[in-house]
Amino acid sequence: MQGKGLLGELINSLCCLPGIGPKSAQRMAFHLLQRDRQGARRLSDILTKAVNEIGHCRQCRTLTEKELCDICANPAREQGLLCIVESPADVWVIEQATAFRGHYFVLHGRLSPLDGIGPDELGFDELEARMRSGQLQEIILATNSTVEGEATAHFIAELARKYTIPASRIAHGVPMGGELEYTDSGTLMHAFSGRREI
Amino acid sequence: MQGKGLLGELINSLCCLPGIGPKSAQRMAFHLLQRDRQGARRLSDILTKAVNEIGHCRQCRTLTEKELCDICANPAREQGLLCIVESPADVWVIEQATAFRGHYFVLHGRLSPLDGIGPDELGFDELEARMRSGQLQEIILATNSTVEGEATAHFIAELARKYTIPASRIAHGVPMGGELEYTDSGTLMHAFSGRREI
Repeated sequence: MQGKGLLGELINSLCCLPGIGPKSAQRMAFHLLQRDRQGARRLSDILTKAVNEIGHCRQCRTLTEKELCDICANPAREQGLLCIVESPADVWVIEQATAFRGHYFVLHGRLSPLDGIGPDELGFDELEARMRSGQLQEIILATNSTVEGEATAHFIAELARKYTIPASRIAHGVPMGGELEYTDSGTLMHAFSGRREI
Repeated sequence: MQGKGLLGELINSLCCLPGIGPKSAQRMAFHLLQRDRQGARRLSDILTKAVNEIGHCRQCRTLTEKELCDICANPAREQGLLCIVESPADVWVIEQATAFRGHYFVLHGRLSPLDGIGPDELGFDELEARMRSGQLQEIILATNSTVEGEATAHFIAELARKYTIPASRIAHGVPMGGELEYTDSGTLMHAFSGRREI
């Protein structure tokens, strides 16, 4: 019976959501049809609207339905402070978790020569133009701590040095609330070499 | 930033899905916008269509976009065999798991006097009309094995007795692959009292 009828189509479509398999999709479909048709209608409307209207901010390249995102358009935020991240999701979590009041620049990826992703794909010319403008006082590198994320951070740090802009890297170490016993050796090594005076 | 803009609205709407909290909703929204806009568009279209078109089968009351569902409309299925379930999701799982070739009747709930759910809300008059028609040879009671599900099954069994239709209850016991050590006492008791000769 699976795959038959409109109900089957709905279940199949719900499987396109990340982390949702056939069982969860089934549960979602029945829940929406039996208990929350209004929520389903609202979700459908907003999904269409979001897919059609959300593009990239022309300054920081994050996801937004406007030409300039709320952060770039906010005059209260510090123009001189630029945080560089790999994806719009990173902007979202940093905004929720920290008191960072500067601007962002979204790379939409990381340097990965094997996959054909070089400086051109990541908007490095736009980034360099901003460095050249002389407005930047500090660059915070918040790319992921993967091999490629680290390489990308180093590449940008070199670029910043060329324009004599101080660049910093977010701290890596044992997570808050984490126990040494359950921390992997790479993180622990990093935590030791990056120790700070207290 | 949460809740702001179209992206925030999308994340909030995704939270209406069962089992999806703010973190998963975030992940879904970014996945759809960055990597699968086509899937998002298709999901949105089918969701609208499903919510608008899917109603209940006039014979078995399951969810379908037609007047008569595929099962009721299928002449190859046994008219005399009727399986009674609580919800359309139960029809779906039984169809996937078993070789049952009869018809269904969906109660859309179970007897629950405290919640004001009596025989009228569960379509017992339609069910009785089918029993009266003389076409039914066997009724299989597949309501859930909760107190209310059991009470509902007994109530329908009484009704069937009135029309001298044999009624059976699906078996309850230790799940296949389950270990005795980890089986709850209620299930184990049921498994002992319901033992069968081998």
